[in-house]
Amino acid sequence: MEREQALAAVREQLTDHRYQHTLGVMGTAIELAGKYGADVAKAELAAIFHDYAKFRPKEEMKQIIIEQNMNRDLLVHNEELWHAPVGAYLIEQEAGIRDQEVLDAVRFHTSGKAGMTLLEKVIYVADYIEPGRIFPGADEARAAAGRDLDEAMKLALRNTITFLLKKNQAVYPLTIEAYNDLVLKNGRN
Amino acid sequence: MEREQALAAVREQLTDHRYQHTLGVMGTAIELAGKYGADVAKAELAAIFHDYAKFRPKEEMKQIIIEQNMNRDLLVHNEELWHAPVGAYLIEQEAGIRDQEVLDAVRFHTSGKAGMTLLEKVIYVADYIEPGRIFPGADEARAAAGRDLDEAMKLALRNTITFLLKKNQAVYPLTIEAYNDLVLKNGRN
Repeated sequence: MEREQALAAVREQLTDHRYQHTLGVMGTAIELAGKYGADVAKAELAAIFHDYAKFRPKEEMKQIIIEQNMNRDLLVHNEELWHAPVGAYLIEQEAGIRDQEVLDAVRFHTSGKAGMTLLEKVIYVADYIEPGRIFPGADEARAAAGRDLDEAMKLALRNTITFLLKKNQAVYPLTIEAYNDLVLKNGRN
Repeated sequence: MEREQALAAVREQLTDHRYQHTLGVMGTAIELAGKYGADVAKAELAAIFHDYAKFRPKEEMKQIIIEQNMNRDLLVHNEELWHAPVGAYLIEQEAGIRDQEVLDAVRFHTSGKAGMTLLEKVIYVADYIEPGRIFPGADEARAAAGRDLDEAMKLALRNTITFLLKKNQAVYPLTIEAYNDLVLKNGRN
């Protein structure tokens, strides 16, 4: 799919603010893919579509999670997680994207998971550090992404988990598994 | 087993410092058990024996984990976790404790787990807040334990997980499951 066509398909689904965020993720994902040797075209496509389902009604997402036999754990965890796996499903159905690597990069862009591919990490990190993101530690995360993609992943996951703990929210199992996987890879704990 | 006999058996296994800690946990566990309606005799026994294996050689603990088919995940996680399940095994073997509730309270006193019993929570919290514990937030944890045992559990688990994240250490799955279980019980996230 051409970039312009993909962007037009996504723009219809998003608020202006979220579309601007998507453009930021696209640019950052292309940059990171080039730097770390991921497939740049796939990174661009996954970035454009990563938030495709962000504004779908909660009930529609819930129904898709149930009907498509997605992990039922999703339903007891924060709804913010739903748009990622639901998005992977919808962009296949509605936009005809069949590339499993691209679909998985969308599927895991919010939760992460253990054993992430390079492309999945590129999208996860790009979503976290795109230029429109302003939060304490954003520049530190950008600097980490410039040095080492796994370091940036760890930092993003650590910040996300700490944020959830502070808000007295549950931590989705895939997210802690993503963090543990990266920490334990560097030798025993 | 009488208190004095139990304390004598444990004292041999511990440093003076750790024995003093054990006395603190015993007193606090008795208090919490009385307050929240757990079995006071079981709480006393579990508290006395909770750190029984604390100073066993690493290799001995490792061998027990393997031979007794304990969760192999333990071996890639922090060794600080090992003395709890190994202790539950050893106090049955060496001190003849057969009460499964007491053994489980020892087994899960470091990691926690989803669906903890009242007795397990009493020991976990007593270990965290006994008078000898001095750390930022200790008094807050004591106050929480005076109000609501689950609140104290959540606070202890949250602090523990945050501490591990700051130290760039992995988080043992049972620990995040213990936290999630308590958070998700109070309605959806």
